[in-house]
Amino acid sequence: MDKIKVGILGYGNLGRGVELAVSKAEDMELVAVFTRRDNVVTNMGIKCINVNKIEEYKDRIDVLIMCGGSATDLPVQGVQMIKNFNTVDSFDTHAKIPEYFANMDKVAKQNGKLGIISVGWDPGLFSMARMLFGAVLPDGNDYTFWGKGVSQGHSDAIRRVNGVKAGIQYTIPKDEALKKVRNAENPVLSAREKHLRECFVVLEDGADKAKVESEIKNMPNYFADYDTIVHFVSEQELKQNHNKMPHGGFVIRSGNTTDEHKHVLELSIKLDSNPEFTSSVLTAYARAIAKLAKEGKTGAVTVFDIPLSYLSSKSPEDLRKNLL
Amino acid sequence: MDKIKVGILGYGNLGRGVELAVSKAEDMELVAVFTRRDNVVTNMGIKCINVNKIEEYKDRIDVLIMCGGSATDLPVQGVQMIKNFNTVDSFDTHAKIPEYFANMDKVAKQNGKLGIISVGWDPGLFSMARMLFGAVLPDGNDYTFWGKGVSQGHSDAIRRVNGVKAGIQYTIPKDEALKKVRNAENPVLSAREKHLRECFVVLEDGADKAKVESEIKNMPNYFADYDTIVHFVSEQELKQNHNKMPHGGFVIRSGNTTDEHKHVLELSIKLDSNPEFTSSVLTAYARAIAKLAKEGKTGAVTVFDIPLSYLSSKSPEDLRKNLL
Repeated sequence: MDKIKVGILGYGNLGRGVELAVSKAEDMELVAVFTRRDNVVTNMGIKCINVNKIEEYKDRIDVLIMCGGSATDLPVQGVQMIKNFNTVDSFDTHAKIPEYFANMDKVAKQNGKLGIISVGWDPGLFSMARMLFGAVLPDGNDYTFWGKGVSQGHSDAIRRVNGVKAGIQYTIPKDEALKKVRNAENPVLSAREKHLRECFVVLEDGADKAKVESEIKNMPNYFADYDTIVHFVSEQELKQNHNKMPHGGFVIRSGNTTDEHKHVLELSIKLDSNPEFTSSVLTAYARAIAKLAKEGKTGAVTVFDIPLSYLSSKSPEDLRKNLL
Repeated sequence: MDKIKVGILGYGNLGRGVELAVSKAEDMELVAVFTRRDNVVTNMGIKCINVNKIEEYKDRIDVLIMCGGSATDLPVQGVQMIKNFNTVDSFDTHAKIPEYFANMDKVAKQNGKLGIISVGWDPGLFSMARMLFGAVLPDGNDYTFWGKGVSQGHSDAIRRVNGVKAGIQYTIPKDEALKKVRNAENPVLSAREKHLRECFVVLEDGADKAKVESEIKNMPNYFADYDTIVHFVSEQELKQNHNKMPHGGFVIRSGNTTDEHKHVLELSIKLDSNPEFTSSVLTAYARAIAKLAKEGKTGAVTVFDIPLSYLSSKSPEDLRKNLL
């Protein structure tokens, strides 16, 4: 069988992870990596191609994995790329998903292409758990916890504070809340009761510690509604002990079938590297998109629309025999 | 929109659970319950119809949920029923799934019907976790643990021992094994290392305790390969403390994306009532089968073939907005 021809757009953390994942997939081959920067050579020694030339590849790529960010890259790139390519992306600006979906769906259908949006673990695997758990246990409540892990958004927010040279923020789910949820107590939990925020901050020379700490802790939206711990550390300590991007979390649903019988369903993930795992998920969905596009499907889709068997390189017979 | 018209075949524990689940689903209506026995009235006051008359209902039912057992009922009923109905079943004799699938697929296609086999939590939700986890984290190992919960097969085996009046068996996953797996140690685990078997046994008058205990503990296939604990209890205690059917378990996959980065994915479920939850899963898949059949799909399918959105009564827009 012909290998699935993959292109990668963007060579940051996600792009690197996808390159790795595709190299391990026996049914896929990496055709090209596209970047805005010139003279980039990938970890695996591939010379990147300027994104200006991407149209020349439109008949040589089965699926393009877009590895840009949700804030500025994807809203622009998505609708451009889907004119010529079947696409996969990890669009994760939750409030804008309906709008992004509609834009992608329209252009995809006009051009006979297929694109899956919002792939990863949240949105992604966690969304699937919320959807599946709710369908099989309709009378109940679900809870999503994140962490322990690095939140890029909150880390960026710390770094914007005056007097901060560098910093990182870990989101940590609170054990007590997790315990109540797992115990099917159906608690009503405030933001503060669900997660703790722990910050490691490097100060600029001469910065006012107390002022920085207070500014972080009282920052609206990001920290004010949480218990926040601020540690001041040296630049060296930050680089040495906080240079990884672990993450994870929990989707838990508890519910009843009768008054006497309650049930608890839980998906939990624990990741040493958030971008590498997300890339691995993107790559599995790239396989599904290549197969579905070949079958003639067009438009925008999400993880809710893809039969699981499409994610695997194994045959349906093999899957039924060994995994069912 | 027209409600999905559901039929139930068989009125044991599963049938009762499906009746309950369908009654709670606003987009479904229960048309009839079919049994082999006469004069059965359901928990909800429906007079059951003899299965001999089921053909008369073939144009009045969108999907028939078969609630019989895998050992003798389904292999016979399945291929009969799928001539006239779209079906859902919980066939769980693992080794015979390929054969059962082939039989169902053939008859379904000949008759323009659609049937999903092996729905529930294992096979079912656990199969989906094994499949999904393996696809998104290909370089790894997965482990399935069952319990704490009642194993019908092992309880039946106890009750066949001479001198045993009644009994129940709980399968219990071993904490130490779970810990190693969650810690991504990729252990090689024997049956004995994974699960403990705990039995509560009521003796016949005058039976030899030591002999019964030894016979249970040394029973090949069922107990000999496990650490087995046997408690002797009174009939009253058995009825009072062991009259529920709890179950649950864990699917855990650990794997690497690079040598330095490991990841652990886990689905866990904890059920107060195994049959009620299984019935709830069957009912969600009945909705999917009704929708897919309406779209013209025929043949046999499994949980690997169904996009998750088909399980929900909510619109795709709603699912994307609220769950993605």
